[in-house]
Amino acid sequence: MADAAAAWELMRGRVGELEALDEVAQLLEWDQQTMMPAGGASHRGKHLAAISGLQHARVAEPVVGEWLSTLSDSSDPVHQAAVRNLRRLHERAVRVPVNLVQRIAEASNTGFVAWLEAKQSNDFSIFQPALETLLALRKEEVAHLGPADHPYDHLLDVYDPGSTTAELRPMFARLSEALSSFIFEVSDKEGPAPLTASFDVQGQARLSQQILDRIGFRTQDGRLDVAAHPFTVAMGTSDVRLTTRYHPDEILSGLGSTIHEAGHGMYEQGLPVKWASTGLAQAAGMGMHESQSRFWENVIGRSLPFFQWLAPMMNEIWPGQAVSAQALYGAANRVQPSLIRVEADEATYNLHIVIRFELEIALLSGELEVRDLPEAWNAAYQRVLGVHATGAAQGVLQDVHWSNGLFGYFPSYTIGNLYASSFRFEMEADLPEMWTQVAQGQFEDVLAWLRAKVHDQGHSLDAPDIFRQAVGERDPVADLMAHLRGRHGALYGVS
Amino acid sequence: MADAAAAWELMRGRVGELEALDEVAQLLEWDQQTMMPAGGASHRGKHLAAISGLQHARVAEPVVGEWLSTLSDSSDPVHQAAVRNLRRLHERAVRVPVNLVQRIAEASNTGFVAWLEAKQSNDFSIFQPALETLLALRKEEVAHLGPADHPYDHLLDVYDPGSTTAELRPMFARLSEALSSFIFEVSDKEGPAPLTASFDVQGQARLSQQILDRIGFRTQDGRLDVAAHPFTVAMGTSDVRLTTRYHPDEILSGLGSTIHEAGHGMYEQGLPVKWASTGLAQAAGMGMHESQSRFWENVIGRSLPFFQWLAPMMNEIWPGQAVSAQALYGAANRVQPSLIRVEADEATYNLHIVIRFELEIALLSGELEVRDLPEAWNAAYQRVLGVHATGAAQGVLQDVHWSNGLFGYFPSYTIGNLYASSFRFEMEADLPEMWTQVAQGQFEDVLAWLRAKVHDQGHSLDAPDIFRQAVGERDPVADLMAHLRGRHGALYGVS
Repeated sequence: MADAAAAWELMRGRVGELEALDEVAQLLEWDQQTMMPAGGASHRGKHLAAISGLQHARVAEPVVGEWLSTLSDSSDPVHQAAVRNLRRLHERAVRVPVNLVQRIAEASNTGFVAWLEAKQSNDFSIFQPALETLLALRKEEVAHLGPADHPYDHLLDVYDPGSTTAELRPMFARLSEALSSFIFEVSDKEGPAPLTASFDVQGQARLSQQILDRIGFRTQDGRLDVAAHPFTVAMGTSDVRLTTRYHPDEILSGLGSTIHEAGHGMYEQGLPVKWASTGLAQAAGMGMHESQSRFWENVIGRSLPFFQWLAPMMNEIWPGQAVSAQALYGAANRVQPSLIRVEADEATYNLHIVIRFELEIALLSGELEVRDLPEAWNAAYQRVLGVHATGAAQGVLQDVHWSNGLFGYFPSYTIGNLYASSFRFEMEADLPEMWTQVAQGQFEDVLAWLRAKVHDQGHSLDAPDIFRQAVGERDPVADLMAHLRGRHGALYGVS
Repeated sequence: MADAAAAWELMRGRVGELEALDEVAQLLEWDQQTMMPAGGASHRGKHLAAISGLQHARVAEPVVGEWLSTLSDSSDPVHQAAVRNLRRLHERAVRVPVNLVQRIAEASNTGFVAWLEAKQSNDFSIFQPALETLLALRKEEVAHLGPADHPYDHLLDVYDPGSTTAELRPMFARLSEALSSFIFEVSDKEGPAPLTASFDVQGQARLSQQILDRIGFRTQDGRLDVAAHPFTVAMGTSDVRLTTRYHPDEILSGLGSTIHEAGHGMYEQGLPVKWASTGLAQAAGMGMHESQSRFWENVIGRSLPFFQWLAPMMNEIWPGQAVSAQALYGAANRVQPSLIRVEADEATYNLHIVIRFELEIALLSGELEVRDLPEAWNAAYQRVLGVHATGAAQGVLQDVHWSNGLFGYFPSYTIGNLYASSFRFEMEADLPEMWTQVAQGQFEDVLAWLRAKVHDQGHSLDAPDIFRQAVGERDPVADLMAHLRGRHGALYGVS
């Protein structure tokens, strides 16, 4: 295979197939959580296993390695990026034995079942053997993947290619320190009041749709449905499906979900179709994905100008409530250290992640044994957040991730928050009118900025490089703290 | 590969994967017609092409041929049936060049677009070149498939494995003759009145659900949705999805759709799970599938006892209408030669099929040129049904099948009607109480009979053998005529 042009065409064919399989897997997941009848569960595992087996087989084929080496000298930057992206997948698939992949898949199934039971029984010991197996298998996988600066890099690489333990660890430590002292300052102040009013679900659904239409999610190229645990899937840029949830007493949570998922969705809708079937028309990683969802949910969706736009719309749907922008803004930005990550406020949230990140590294490196994990968890929560779980269900068993074998995923959430804060300040410099526009429900310039700096880049660069190209030498830790102090600090009188 | 047990396990793995891919393709189709946003269309073709490309690649692999030859001497009847089923798929995939498969797929896409435009313009000449291409490609495919008693057998084999042109042709000719004279007898008689009342769509949806629950469709293992062109898909026996449609002025058509699709669905729900991943837990072909849908829609769903059960339920939902079982029965069984197949009554329907069957054979054998097809079509309709289309849109362009390259599919519909009639009389002999039960809304024994004689057989035998095993030496043409004369003939006073 000496002809680079031919290799490029063949490689595009294969990458297009892999993209299609990934989109099919996403549809299977979406259907499972929104439309599938109860009886479908027993078959769905077989469908997903067949698709993932084929993904592995097709990316691992020796001919893929031949295309990659033929194209490795190409000076075309699109070729270079495509080779980098596909090589990651190919080498992982080649190096990790199929048998190990299957054992991890089985252990994830078993682990999930054990975790469910353990959580219901509030008893870590039920989950402990499954977690030990899953951790051992991940260590085995990491060993197959060969030397790295840090073994944890091999896990990060799956979700956030380009991020390294060496960079994240000191950054997260600085953030943790700054956050802890900020939360300590806030902790004895009286903050804004929560929202106590009730809002009917039908009205919330109408409002969600109005928000989607205005912020720039293209409804003809997507859907919004209800799911117990909101998520977003994309079967291409013009079939992007969001899910959200509504509860009469938790309107801010439901709206937050809608805006968060729309942030993911607008990223997917904005990926560069010109690069279809190259592997570049993809998100640049989960951290960058979270930066988009959290930018919209937090930076925009919890801002005072946003609520200045939203309050009159709410008062039109629920005239009896007479909500004010200031009350909504306050209620959306209360700070309260708590036990449960997914219910945490914007300020304390990242401490939940830093705790998990350090525990994962300790487990992977062997510094921490699984049997000692609950104690280490509780100690970290006490030390970092000053809270103590009454049982494992509210502590070490609260997240599903580890039960599915997902190690290395949690950092994405805080990477997203860090990126989003720097995007905010860079955007404010580029768009001096942005908050005036937001207060009027005009989001075109904000979206256009994200399109140009992030979405249009696809996966032509890794996320850290896209971030640097967008914001220059900004310090994301300083930006996140400035964002939180300017907002929550002001509300609590400590800025 | 000398070890038959090992070959069997490997073959089951591959067949399981192929079954999963087929189910995934069905979900993609279902989603496309029920849930997919408008923008999704541009991506869906890529998903379906990737799946069908993989289906072809995985079944054509030489190793599949090795498993088949290792197992060809097995005395185990399950092995024998599995080998027969998989060999058909393997040999077709091996013999037909991938390049030709792709050209047929592309020509089907082009053909569909041309057909849509031609139908809208009522102008066959717009579709003619595309149809010529499609026919030429099918002839090329048939040539690759090697000698057969009749080249049309290669087309039948895709949809109705086991059916042959040599058997169908004289059977269809006898049926055509008997039907023509019956319809002639009926034609100058005054028949029952049509239904003129209107029934709201919400009530029809409720009634559809009540019918599904009673006839035996397991709702927890399926769904019922609305689609422009009703269809059924199955992602395994416990995820079977029906679609139907409702129109206030056409309640019998909507209920007929629901019952028809439920017939397909109950077949899928009843396939033998013990044979999962062998290729035997499948329907035995499209003709047998239609026998199930048409048995429920026509034999049961248009019977007087069925309406005796249904009328009180309708009068509970729509007390103002005061429908009677006899009026419903009459309206559901009017005979009227007409131009459009999908709107035809039970008696004239099969003549539409016989016309298409003979035209397809003439086209494939070269006796008829595509350019002469409209004239041949109109002549056949005039001769057989005594009706003449005012334009191509209502004539030769009415069906989508040929535009998608589907030749050899139409006979399935009449095979289904023939099988269903013989099932009726055999079932009446086995279940003397069946019509009494139907009049009381008790369908357990009817469904149990179909389960035992048809569903439980899966694809362990080809459809003609399952049919013979179920009904012995019955003559399905005589049975279909007896069924029609006993029902429509009586209503028209000619029996």
